[in-house]
Amino acid sequence: MKVIRTISEMRSWSKEIKNNGYILGFVPTMGFLHEGHLSLIREAKKHADKVVVSIYVNPTQFGPGEDFEKYPRDFARDEKLCLKEGVDAVFYPDDQQMYGPLHKTYVITEDLSKVLCGRSRPGHFRGVTTIVAKLFNIVQPDFAVFGQKDAQQAIIIKRMVEDLNFPVEIVVAPIIREADGLAMSSRNKYLSPQQRKEATVLYRSLKLAEHEFKRGNFDLEAIKAKMRHLIETESTGQIDYIEAVDAETLGKPVPGKRSVLLALAVFFHPARLIDNIILK
Amino acid sequence: MKVIRTISEMRSWSKEIKNNGYILGFVPTMGFLHEGHLSLIREAKKHADKVVVSIYVNPTQFGPGEDFEKYPRDFARDEKLCLKEGVDAVFYPDDQQMYGPLHKTYVITEDLSKVLCGRSRPGHFRGVTTIVAKLFNIVQPDFAVFGQKDAQQAIIIKRMVEDLNFPVEIVVAPIIREADGLAMSSRNKYLSPQQRKEATVLYRSLKLAEHEFKRGNFDLEAIKAKMRHLIETESTGQIDYIEAVDAETLGKPVPGKRSVLLALAVFFHPARLIDNIILK
Repeated sequence: MKVIRTISEMRSWSKEIKNNGYILGFVPTMGFLHEGHLSLIREAKKHADKVVVSIYVNPTQFGPGEDFEKYPRDFARDEKLCLKEGVDAVFYPDDQQMYGPLHKTYVITEDLSKVLCGRSRPGHFRGVTTIVAKLFNIVQPDFAVFGQKDAQQAIIIKRMVEDLNFPVEIVVAPIIREADGLAMSSRNKYLSPQQRKEATVLYRSLKLAEHEFKRGNFDLEAIKAKMRHLIETESTGQIDYIEAVDAETLGKPVPGKRSVLLALAVFFHPARLIDNIILK
Repeated sequence: MKVIRTISEMRSWSKEIKNNGYILGFVPTMGFLHEGHLSLIREAKKHADKVVVSIYVNPTQFGPGEDFEKYPRDFARDEKLCLKEGVDAVFYPDDQQMYGPLHKTYVITEDLSKVLCGRSRPGHFRGVTTIVAKLFNIVQPDFAVFGQKDAQQAIIIKRMVEDLNFPVEIVVAPIIREADGLAMSSRNKYLSPQQRKEATVLYRSLKLAEHEFKRGNFDLEAIKAKMRHLIETESTGQIDYIEAVDAETLGKPVPGKRSVLLALAVFFHPARLIDNIILK
């Protein structure tokens, strides 16, 4: 497995792979890999001849006062995990390379970046689309794998790829959960043992919604109220949002006709956890 | 010469060219080609094995009340000119293909897009960077040629390419002028015979500035005042701006130490003409 530290080396490596006619799969990450990331790597390996994983904690997607500095990092561990999964190259650049002193360019997705997590984290998705555009241009993969866990991110990246005509296919892999249902996240490590127990209520609230939907209850306001009640009575979590939106446009949902994304974000301080479900 | 109307056909054509190991040069235009455009094509042919010219009047770079609808178009004539210049493919897509109904993504260059022409044309450069990003992803050229005539555009595109790591080299070709010094522009056709005569004052004002610079006068405010006086006394043109900025950052100029871009925009209604010079 090759560890690549520079943009120019990444480009040459990728060029050689493509010249050999190989299919190149790409998994962009911020490192501190867990089973969720590994599932994205396994998904990539299913379709690719060669797989690149990038590990880069992207400063432009963190807001002021967010956890950029203390976001967990452990490259030695990540490297071992990638090796074990049969990754072909890890792209591990530094900030100086990724954002030069004259950097002024950003990719924005209007409207889509302002709802759900974008409402509580202004500028977050602008940072995500910008770094992903950069990584696509550097790595030039045939396809890239994103997790359904960050549902809004996956939708926004798909929108960006279609709108800017990136020659990259987007694959969205399902959420990987702990045995008790908690969605895997690097931020779960911030949870106290008590919070960790309580946090299972997020998934249970989503399953409750799914149950309502399955029995024909499309009253999204009533469903959201039930979820809110469940979370508030069974945990100390503070709800940031519980929202139901159209699963493609993130606009007004049309339950029963188009897929609905039901998403939530809940603070278990200092962690902010997200989870979601698609209701078809 | 191939005329390509669809994105998918453009992609396949380009892929084949690249697979054959050819160097692909690209000249993006809005059509209604004049000698200025042809000079960009000739520049491209110098360095490329194959040259693509795109002809697309991009709606997102026109503001409300600007000349999008009446911007001059003549594809039959453009096609003949491209053929004569030995262009290999003309990419001539329609609006439906280039901007889908769910389009939400834009590329922005902070600060750089707000000065000079960006001040009078809010949103203009956002439209330019967005369409150029799209065209780069569709055409996937090795290099692209832009004209020094649109100096701010060339600087912004270079910034975008560096910031977003597009694998495309940017070549900037010099301004092509009529015999009397007027910079070639599709918008010159809007000029009345009297305005056409007067418009030569723009180049003369730039030469005056260059002369001052050459004799060691770096007082940019005094130079701009002289230019303003010349334009106001020798024409009916209404000055939009005369600005001196750093030729790379478009920020505060440092004459004598770094290259200065001296740029102007003057209305000869209904035309708005631009011109510039680099003072080293």
